[in-house]
Amino acid sequence: MSHNSFGHLFRVTTWGESHGPAIGCVVDGCPPRLALGEADIQPFLDRRRPGQSAFVTQRQEPDQVRILSGVFEGLTTGTPIALVIENQDQRSRDYGEIKDRFRPGHADLAYELKYGIRDYRGGGRSSARETAMRVAAGAIARKVLGPDVTIRGALVQMGGDAVDRAAWDWAAVGENDFSCPDRAAARRWEQALLAARKSGSSLGAVIEVVAEGVPPGLGAPIYGKLDAEIAAALMGINAVKGVEIGEGFAAAALTGEANADEMRMGADGRVVFGSNHAGGVLGGISTGQPIVARFAVKPTSSILTPRQAVDRHGREVDVLTKGRHDPCVGIRAVPVGEAMLALVLADHLLRHRAQNPDAPDSARLPRN
Amino acid sequence: MSHNSFGHLFRVTTWGESHGPAIGCVVDGCPPRLALGEADIQPFLDRRRPGQSAFVTQRQEPDQVRILSGVFEGLTTGTPIALVIENQDQRSRDYGEIKDRFRPGHADLAYELKYGIRDYRGGGRSSARETAMRVAAGAIARKVLGPDVTIRGALVQMGGDAVDRAAWDWAAVGENDFSCPDRAAARRWEQALLAARKSGSSLGAVIEVVAEGVPPGLGAPIYGKLDAEIAAALMGINAVKGVEIGEGFAAAALTGEANADEMRMGADGRVVFGSNHAGGVLGGISTGQPIVARFAVKPTSSILTPRQAVDRHGREVDVLTKGRHDPCVGIRAVPVGEAMLALVLADHLLRHRAQNPDAPDSARLPRN
Amino acid sequence: MSHNSFGHLFRVTTWGESHGPAIGCVVDGCPPRLALGEADIQPFLDRRRPGQSAFVTQRQEPDQVRILSGVFEGLTTGTPIALVIENQDQRSRDYGEIKDRFRPGHADLAYELKYGIRDYRGGGRSSARETAMRVAAGAIARKVLGPDVTIRGALVQMGGDAVDRAAWDWAAVGENDFSCPDRAAARRWEQALLAARKSGSSLGAVIEVVAEGVPPGLGAPIYGKLDAEIAAALMGINAVKGVEIGEGFAAAALTGEANADEMRMGADGRVVFGSNHAGGVLGGISTGQPIVARFAVKPTSSILTPRQAVDRHGREVDVLTKGRHDPCVGIRAVPVGEAMLALVLADHLLRHRAQNPDAPDSARLPRN
Amino acid sequence: MSHNSFGHLFRVTTWGESHGPAIGCVVDGCPPRLALGEADIQPFLDRRRPGQSAFVTQRQEPDQVRILSGVFEGLTTGTPIALVIENQDQRSRDYGEIKDRFRPGHADLAYELKYGIRDYRGGGRSSARETAMRVAAGAIARKVLGPDVTIRGALVQMGGDAVDRAAWDWAAVGENDFSCPDRAAARRWEQALLAARKSGSSLGAVIEVVAEGVPPGLGAPIYGKLDAEIAAALMGINAVKGVEIGEGFAAAALTGEANADEMRMGADGRVVFGSNHAGGVLGGISTGQPIVARFAVKPTSSILTPRQAVDRHGREVDVLTKGRHDPCVGIRAVPVGEAMLALVLADHLLRHRAQNPDAPDSARLPRN
Repeated sequence: MSHNSFGHLFRVTTWGESHGPAIGCVVDGCPPRLALGEADIQPFLDRRRPGQSAFVTQRQEPDQVRILSGVFEGLTTGTPIALVIENQDQRSRDYGEIKDRFRPGHADLAYELKYGIRDYRGGGRSSARETAMRVAAGAIARKVLGPDVTIRGALVQMGGDAVDRAAWDWAAVGENDFSCPDRAAARRWEQALLAARKSGSSLGAVIEVVAEGVPPGLGAPIYGKLDAEIAAALMGINAVKGVEIGEGFAAAALTGEANADEMRMGADGRVVFGSNHAGGVLGGISTGQPIVARFAVKPTSSILTPRQAVDRHGREVDVLTKGRHDPCVGIRAVPVGEAMLALVLADHLLRHRAQNPDAPDSARLPRN
Repeated sequence: MSHNSFGHLFRVTTWGESHGPAIGCVVDGCPPRLALGEADIQPFLDRRRPGQSAFVTQRQEPDQVRILSGVFEGLTTGTPIALVIENQDQRSRDYGEIKDRFRPGHADLAYELKYGIRDYRGGGRSSARETAMRVAAGAIARKVLGPDVTIRGALVQMGGDAVDRAAWDWAAVGENDFSCPDRAAARRWEQALLAARKSGSSLGAVIEVVAEGVPPGLGAPIYGKLDAEIAAALMGINAVKGVEIGEGFAAAALTGEANADEMRMGADGRVVFGSNHAGGVLGGISTGQPIVARFAVKPTSSILTPRQAVDRHGREVDVLTKGRHDPCVGIRAVPVGEAMLALVLADHLLRHRAQNPDAPDSARLPRN
Repeated sequence: MSHNSFGHLFRVTTWGESHGPAIGCVVDGCPPRLALGEADIQPFLDRRRPGQSAFVTQRQEPDQVRILSGVFEGLTTGTPIALVIENQDQRSRDYGEIKDRFRPGHADLAYELKYGIRDYRGGGRSSARETAMRVAAGAIARKVLGPDVTIRGALVQMGGDAVDRAAWDWAAVGENDFSCPDRAAARRWEQALLAARKSGSSLGAVIEVVAEGVPPGLGAPIYGKLDAEIAAALMGINAVKGVEIGEGFAAAALTGEANADEMRMGADGRVVFGSNHAGGVLGGISTGQPIVARFAVKPTSSILTPRQAVDRHGREVDVLTKGRHDPCVGIRAVPVGEAMLALVLADHLLRHRAQNPDAPDSARLPRN
Repeated sequence: MSHNSFGHLFRVTTWGESHGPAIGCVVDGCPPRLALGEADIQPFLDRRRPGQSAFVTQRQEPDQVRILSGVFEGLTTGTPIALVIENQDQRSRDYGEIKDRFRPGHADLAYELKYGIRDYRGGGRSSARETAMRVAAGAIARKVLGPDVTIRGALVQMGGDAVDRAAWDWAAVGENDFSCPDRAAARRWEQALLAARKSGSSLGAVIEVVAEGVPPGLGAPIYGKLDAEIAAALMGINAVKGVEIGEGFAAAALTGEANADEMRMGADGRVVFGSNHAGGVLGGISTGQPIVARFAVKPTSSILTPRQAVDRHGREVDVLTKGRHDPCVGIRAVPVGEAMLALVLADHLLRHRAQNPDAPDSARLPRN
């Protein structure tokens, strides 16, 4: 069961509310003797941190992570790693407005119907603040995967405006505030986002995450398929409404010939594919090709434009949300998507090792 | 861990290969005292059964299910329900062609890299034949959900040709060979599919599944979200490359105002929504609105047009697949998608009951 | 969740009732490329099989196992292995006597209170017949553990009469009908058992199981301790009321000095212990010493002497059980205990490999 | 998987080392709207706390628990409850003596063989300090079970000296430093323990835990049996070597007639048992009778008498342990045993509800 835990062998359990004293997680199953310190985790948190540009929420959180267990003299010990971040900017304010109201697009009503109680301050448990712990745990997952596996993400669409794939440059991703790989698109998005904010509106987005260097054989048929677990991992991020692997929905419109990833032998005895419509996964198992996934994030539900809603007493009300909000929550979802992909891969790496102690670490053929 | 099991409290474990003596599953966690017999399961299997029209594989399998345990005098006993279907049409033939070859788009290479061995006959474990057991288990899940929950599916796109939603008629779904809710589209698809088959090609598809009457409160934050588990369930179906909930990828292009599902109070004290962009799920929890999900199926990989590939000895070969294959595997995926949705919902219904023994069965407000 | 599944990475799910058409199990997570056939499993089933001596039930069951999946050309494929045994001797008879009655010491009342329904024929799901599948799965677990791990069991006490440990001879175990390692005790037990049967009574027993050659490092603190999982595995066998590891309950009466297992270095660089009070487990982790566990089986509840009971209508009745029953169920529990120990060890071997890919396979020191 | 998690639906994950900055746990799956505050947990921690009498370790730890999440305005919210206790008395000292040495009876060697690294300070993760979090989580489990369920424990044997059951008085348990229900035995134990300490030795113990008011129907055949999970829960406590339910090992020496718990109907329509050899569990399911379990704790391994050992460099050394240690660790294991029993029962209560939404809350017959 996995109410608040993610993964099986590399297992993360998170806790904490947006405006409680702290948020944290426990990472269980990490292999021993990996070098690990706060400095390995903090840079990833800093990328997700609020308040860093004009295009994200202005809540100020240093998001300073502390390791409370599982590391001894700079090395993991194989015992659970507890991480904690104290909440700083729990801005004291009047919650009267949202205390009883069910904001459209938020979890308010759903939590109320499920539990009959909810911590309404800043969204409580349903706040995207929880994703900080995913990013922190994801940094440890990268350690487990090792230096040969590279996981990167980029925003490939904001609102209805997609990047030009011919203009893709990974170097551009770090140069703008949107993790956009297309410099021209980044300039257009800047204008679009300022306009949306000004009009009290918000924008959705599509994010692409890519893992390179993933060994073949990760994933477990039938109900532990790598792509199925990636789908769950990404769909579980706040505000995500769609997930696709490789060619994704576009595959439905291709013919069988066009969609086939043809194979040839490389000089090093590995299989070389002529294309990657599959997104690196066949039959739920990694093939050694890059894992490519995309997910769609809906526009931020917290907007200044009033919307019709109800409150917990059954009264009809109008809701508009003032305050510090991301006009496009997709922007800060990029490092979260990368982290979730890292978590799935680290978990599957351990699962694969368990059943295949003599597993090959390459796509070299033939085995015998 | 869930290599071959699906679900947590309502848990299905499947086994069997395409050309082995039989396939089967064990359904564990089914509540006691539900009326259940083979006749409750067979109709769903018959819908997925091969050989029923010119548009699906001609393999002849009666797919007659037998219940071997867990039912006593017509009622479930709370103990595991074992189901088995014997494989009949294991057509004796020469597997020499595919024995050593890795067919593009198939799991052949991935299984070889993972396990170093595979049952190549008809795809072995990776064959979609396994989905018969999902459909069978899904029929039991429907019993658990009860008569107030309705789960239906339809093919909404074949190749690049989508249905006209204005022409949607659920009654049409049962009238054509494609589960198509738009009669005009069904006629077009018939031509397209015959043309694809004739040219040795194949087509992809998009399927929509809808669950109505689902009680609110199902789903568990943060890592047991209802939409995340639906995403995994659908992505885990053979050949699926994308999954979306409610507005899905289209949500990325909407503004916050346009995407908001506004709420009013109904006469019966329930919340009434003005739209369903969310697809029935907020914060990972059902709201009482219909659950709406779609998934994209790639075109059948087994085609008559030769494609470049390699074999297990590292030799470069050309592969083309003769024999009995679905020109559009999406068609038979409709009942499978329905079944997976039923399985997720039944599992979450039990999980919800566990934590909320006094859970309300309606969206009526206020609770207190 | 584990209603009817045992283990995590090497996972067994059983199904079936005593008088249903068949019993079976699914073994998931078995590593690929192990040689496996029915002939590897059948000998263990034959040891547990009823009707083989005057001292066990006369029910006649050939208990012929069939492998339905997961094995291809004599090798495991890494996919789930389905095993099935058809029930033969479902002796047609009048169940009127036990249909409504709750037999003392049996699960009748408990199932009724839990489920409100039960398959009363031969005890249904609660019958020890289910343990045949544990023995079958245990045979596969032995394959996973490999030839260096030896698992044996012996009856060390029948009724109040314990073996003389000075007279212990493993060779004797196979020579008598009780798996007794002390030839003199075996002769005494024969008389005791005949007397108990004659008087319509029954006897309890204590069984010891020992695993030698177990690599160090198996087991996972804090809640996956090897001894804790062995305890659950053995306590879960029908009629078991107590479990102990190493010195067990007797440890409570020892002083700290007497209970210490002192260590010296062996010529081969391995740690040599002067004693094994710990039973091969420290801190929940194997040390390389033999794993030693014992479990107590209560006297058979089905006896000819009438006992007071009630029926499902709340009427007070007397119950006595005629028919085919083991006068000492402990005898046939020996292979079941061995199987459970094998299942725990195989599961932990896989779990250990997952977290420790470079795990040493010996107790040799120092590591660095 | 459950390396550091306990339970399935009521799930506790602990973290922390003896001499790290803090220890903590996450309790997931707690039903919403239960009144909960630190004051509900602290009294149980105070009973387990070190330094409270001359008979336990003199380490001074206030063990002040803090709730960091999952509780809002005094009520649980259904989201994960994080608990933390800061370590205070991490006495600065020279660990040179135990840094490299493997103390007999401790987990030192086993951790080294498994992980190749260990936090040796105070035993690190293997220290019984971790059990403080079990006690804390157990306090929440009691809330889930409600006021009708009473869970109590007592020390029933110290060294070889058992209590006189005829002299049992629950009131006596709180009056002495040993949780001893027999006042005369308590006086004898005081002398024995002082003598053991004086001679640099230590004593073992047997603890009995009893749960009254447990509803029938808890437990899940075949591999989630209530008694099997109690066995694992108790065997997993530090230093425990044996577990028994009801009559336990003594059942092996009883005849079938003597061991039968006969049944009559009570005036209130419930089944009344004439005895409780079964310890409240039949077929792995609670019957409504008191749940009775016992566990044996070995004598403290840390003693002043030197014992032969080895170090991590493979050198033979003598080990004796100075410092603050419990001369009988069984004493402080009493509240831990109670907590583990509470955790198992709370988990099974939720599991039972899931599968049996209309479960009866009494043993009243007949159901229909």
